[in-house]
Parts: sequence; structure tokens; C-alpha cells
Amino acid sequence: MSLTQAVLEGNRLALARLLTQVENNSPESRVALTELFPYTGRSHLIGVTGAPGTGKSSLVNQLALYYRKNHDRKVAIIAVDPSSPFTGGAVLGDRVRMRDLSGDSGVFIRSMASRGSLGGISQTTAAIAQVFDAAGYEIIIIETVGAGQSEVDIARLAHTTLVVEAPGLGDDIQAIKAGILEIADVLVINKADHPGVENTERALRTTLELAHPTTRVFRHHGQAMTVAAPVTDSKLWIPPINRTVATEGKGITELAVSIAKHAEHLRQSGDWTARDRARLGSEMEALLQETLMARFFESIRQEKYEEVMEKVLNRDLSPYEAVKSLLNGRETGKEKS
Amino acid sequence: MSLTQAVLEGNRLALARLLTQVENNSPESRVALTELFPYTGRSHLIGVTGAPGTGKSSLVNQLALYYRKNHDRKVAIIAVDPSSPFTGGAVLGDRVRMRDLSGDSGVFIRSMASRGSLGGISQTTAAIAQVFDAAGYEIIIIETVGAGQSEVDIARLAHTTLVVEAPGLGDDIQAIKAGILEIADVLVINKADHPGVENTERALRTTLELAHPTTRVFRHHGQAMTVAAPVTDSKLWIPPINRTVATEGKGITELAVSIAKHAEHLRQSGDWTARDRARLGSEMEALLQETLMARFFESIRQEKYEEVMEKVLNRDLSPYEAVKSLLNGRETGKEKS
Repeated sequence: MSLTQAVLEGNRLALARLLTQVENNSPESRVALTELFPYTGRSHLIGVTGAPGTGKSSLVNQLALYYRKNHDRKVAIIAVDPSSPFTGGAVLGDRVRMRDLSGDSGVFIRSMASRGSLGGISQTTAAIAQVFDAAGYEIIIIETVGAGQSEVDIARLAHTTLVVEAPGLGDDIQAIKAGILEIADVLVINKADHPGVENTERALRTTLELAHPTTRVFRHHGQAMTVAAPVTDSKLWIPPINRTVATEGKGITELAVSIAKHAEHLRQSGDWTARDRARLGSEMEALLQETLMARFFESIRQEKYEEVMEKVLNRDLSPYEAVKSLLNGRETGKEKS
Repeated sequence: MSLTQAVLEGNRLALARLLTQVENNSPESRVALTELFPYTGRSHLIGVTGAPGTGKSSLVNQLALYYRKNHDRKVAIIAVDPSSPFTGGAVLGDRVRMRDLSGDSGVFIRSMASRGSLGGISQTTAAIAQVFDAAGYEIIIIETVGAGQSEVDIARLAHTTLVVEAPGLGDDIQAIKAGILEIADVLVINKADHPGVENTERALRTTLELAHPTTRVFRHHGQAMTVAAPVTDSKLWIPPINRTVATEGKGITELAVSIAKHAEHLRQSGDWTARDRARLGSEMEALLQETLMARFFESIRQEKYEEVMEKVLNRDLSPYEAVKSLLNGRETGKEKS
């Protein structure tokens, strides 16, 4: 039986083996991905991002448990750590997950240390999500650690992106928040039993107001309430703010409701297909780029490339001229000025 | 007179105009970059990175002032903010800089909001550094905000990378530190007058020890001292740890000495050329990729691409098959399984 067939039939060992091949970008994995592709497009991809210390891992853990217990969904978790490109990094919370979720054949957890380029990470993550999708995992949670562009790239893969905050992480990170907020479909204030939760929610509402000018915040007896402005555009989605205490399982049901509402919104507005299209479009471009580069390097002699590179180092040829000459197969040597 | 000529002659207005063109990746900027390239390769590129709240901007400000006053070097500052890809982000500390450095024609500050892809940012940053290099700025400081892959990519541009820490930013960021530390050539503990500075230094030394196993830490009367193990490899560089209080200008001279020592080390070990080679190599690859993609999209009809994309969306064709068929100019339609 082929690896693909075994994966489709729910063989976990085959699944694990294929995921490793995908991570290594092996030729076999390409064949398998092609064979599995017709079976994809059924999962709900949920991205979870936020600064370290917000308790993302516990939250993801609880969400997974919720989908298992209450909806009997198969759940895959992809934990990506792009903050530590050299050491490979330790994805926190794995131990916690193991205790609650191991032994459940409806859950599969994959940690990805992010070696290599950022583009590479999101490409591999997309491919891994496709494998889980084909293997029948209806909920795929992609968790990323850190803050910055990496999150944004990976969030683009998801249908629904959760941005997790926590009280008391300081105002230094406000600048980052502003950027991250714009990728949020659902906002989560985890550790909501900690002091400062009101401040955190207020700060989030203020930032939301800036990002979504159609939201109006009314102050009523000192309590901020977000009210959507009269909406004519059915496509409008204002990210709800959910409070959770993941370590105690509090607020998880309400969070799952927000996620379900967002999925419903995506389907009704046509954005579900739009996000699929964007994701597959990026994937195709990345593949095109990779293939074009590979073909180029096959077509050129190593020594020729080194020779041109040497001229660039000596400032005899600019990078632009070098690329042009390499692509045109001829060289326009130039005297050093 | 051409823009290039004006830039070479030190015209600041022409320089500002060219930088904008480079940021917009205009065809004129490509010509200018090619014309300027022979004049590059003389600057010391210093990367400065670290979490928000460490006081990086003040530190960069002080370093710039130091090089102006004590060495009469022309200094360029490129402030990149990759944490806020959508809003463009506010690069902090610009106001502070303006007060101390404006009016000095030997200093040029350029803030870059990072729109678009991360690859795009480091490519543009590299191009902007080249312009400053050709324009005679001997010290080019590239400052990035945030933590993660983005820093790493941008640090790869620099000859010397400073990683800035500050006491009391919490242990939550330890995981990030581990990754970031490996790109550090010089470690800076800024805000060294704040409580907890000893803890911060101890944590850094411990992490350094892990990253550089040749470093030995001796504990002497409870005080940690880092002593380099007997070195036979002249290429070995152990990142020194410098304490600064940038707001008061303290420790800046010592920091500049560490930076100078690192530059000297790079030149003696041959790593200066190696870093140049790596940087120009990445630049060439990025240009190659861009050019190959542009040529591909020119060679194919838009409708053809859309048609294939539609088949991918319908899961009739996998992305791999789609790319293959596009590149081979023929289509291998497949029935949906």
C-alpha cells in the first residue's frame, strides 16, 4: 500500500512519516502531496498567534479538547516556532499537551522548528496543513510563537486567525500589537483572571476602533462597549474580544462560538473561497519561484556563476548587470571605475 | 547632472530622492544602483536589534553622535520596522534623534516602514545601504524593531550585529533571546542603571556559554566571569557584553571600542570578505528570482494563468501539477478523484 493510501486510511505512523518527508521537502513528499491534493479543502484552518507569555499553548490545548469532546472533530495542531531560526527552538507547552491529548487518536500534534528561510516556513506549514486536511482532520490549528512578520505570513494561511493577549505584558509591545491586530479575526484575552484585564481590553478596543473605523465605542457608566455602526456591507466583520482562563478551561466554549461565527461569516460573504484562493495562489507562486530557480541553476555551470560572483565582489559588475548577463548567457564585462 | 552624480557629490536632496526611488523599486533606481555600485564596499555596516523597550533608538543616536564627534565619520541610520507590515508602523525615537542630529550634514536618517514581504524588506534595506555606501557614509547603522526572523534576515546584511537587551524585560522572552543571541557579535545591556542588570548579564553569559562552548564561565566569590578558553583558532570571536546607559551617554566609548575590535577581527580572519560575499550572493539570488518570475509572467497569458488557478481551486490539479503544466506550456488535465 502506498504511503498516500495509508495516510488516507488514517494510519498515524504513515502520517508521521509523510510529515517528516514534507518537512524535508523530499521528492516523495511532492508526489504524495499531489496525490493527496484532491482530498483537501475541507478543513477549517485556525491560526493562533500572540506574544510569548500569553498562554497560547494552553489555549490551543483547551480548544483541541473542546472540539474533541463536544463536536467529535479530528484535530491537528501545527506548532511553529519562527523566533529561533538557529537553535530550532523549544515549542513551549508540548508537555502539557501530551498529558491531556496523548492517547487520543483523533488528535495529532506536530511541532515545527523553523530552520531556513521564512518563506520556507510558511510553505512547509501550508504543505503540512494540506496533508492533515487530506487525512481528514477537520480542525487544523496553526500556532506560532513570537511577534512580527512571521506571524503575518503564517496567519495568511488560516481561515480564522486568533490573536492572543494577556494582561500585564506591558505597554512596550503596543507598537507590535497595532500591526498584529490587523490580522486578527478573533481577539482573545487569556489569563483573564489576572489583574489589569480591564486595561488590556480597553487598549484592545481603542486599537480596534482605529483599525475598524466603522466600530463605535460608547462609554456607558465608565464601561466601554463596542457597538458596530449601522452596517450595510454584509462583508464587514468586527473581531470580537473573548476572555479566557485556559488553565481552568474558562471561556473556551464562548471562544469556539466566536470561531464558528467567523467561519459562518466567511462562508456567507464568499471570503472562505477568497482566502483559499489567496493561499493557493501564494503556494503556486512559491513553487514557481523555486522551480524557476532550480531550472536556472541546472542550466548554468557552477564555475560560470562563481566567475560572475567574483566580478560582483570586485565591484566590476553590479548585481543587476550580473543577473542580466547570467540570464542572457553572455557577459558584459565592464572596467572598474 | 544625473541623480547618481549628484549623490556622489554629496547632494542631500538628490540622496533623499534616490532613496525614495529605491524604496519604490523604480526602473530609474535600478540604473542608479548599477552606476553607484563601483563606489560601494567601503562602509562598516552595523546592525542593531533587540526587543522593544530596550532603548535601541537612543543607543543608535548616541553611537551616531560618537562617530561624528570623535572620528568625524559620516553616519547613516536606516531604521526598519518590520513588526507592523500593515500600518507602516511608527519607528520610535525619531524625534529624539532629530533634536540631537538634525542640522548635521554628516548624518542621514532614513526610516523604512516595512510594507510587503519580508524578503522585500531586506532587499530594499540592502539597496539603501548600497546608496549610503556609495555616497560616502562610512558608518551605516541598520536598526530593526521587534524580534524574530526579520531581525535575522536584516542582521545578515551587517558586518557587525549588536543585540540590545535591558534589565527587567522578563523571562518570557528567554526563548527568543536564545535565537537572537546567535546573531550577536556584540551584546549590549542598555539601561544598565536599572535594577536587575546583574541578573540580565548572568542570563546572557549562561546563554553565551551554551552558544559558544569554548567560553568558560568561572564562578569566583559568586561573581560570574567569562574567560575565553585557550584559543588556537584565530577565527574565534566571543561576543563581548557592554553595559550602557544611552540616555546619559554612558558606556558608548567602550561600545565603540568593542565594535572596532570586531571590525578588526573580521578583517584579520577574512570574515569581512566572507560577509560581503554572503550579502551580495543573497542579493543576486533575490534579483535572479525576481527577474525569472517577471519573465515568466510576461511569457504567459493572464487568462491561461487564471484558468490553471481555477483548476487548482477546484482540486482538479495540484499546485505541483499546475506549475509543471504552466512551465511546460501545456496542460495535463486530470479528472477529479
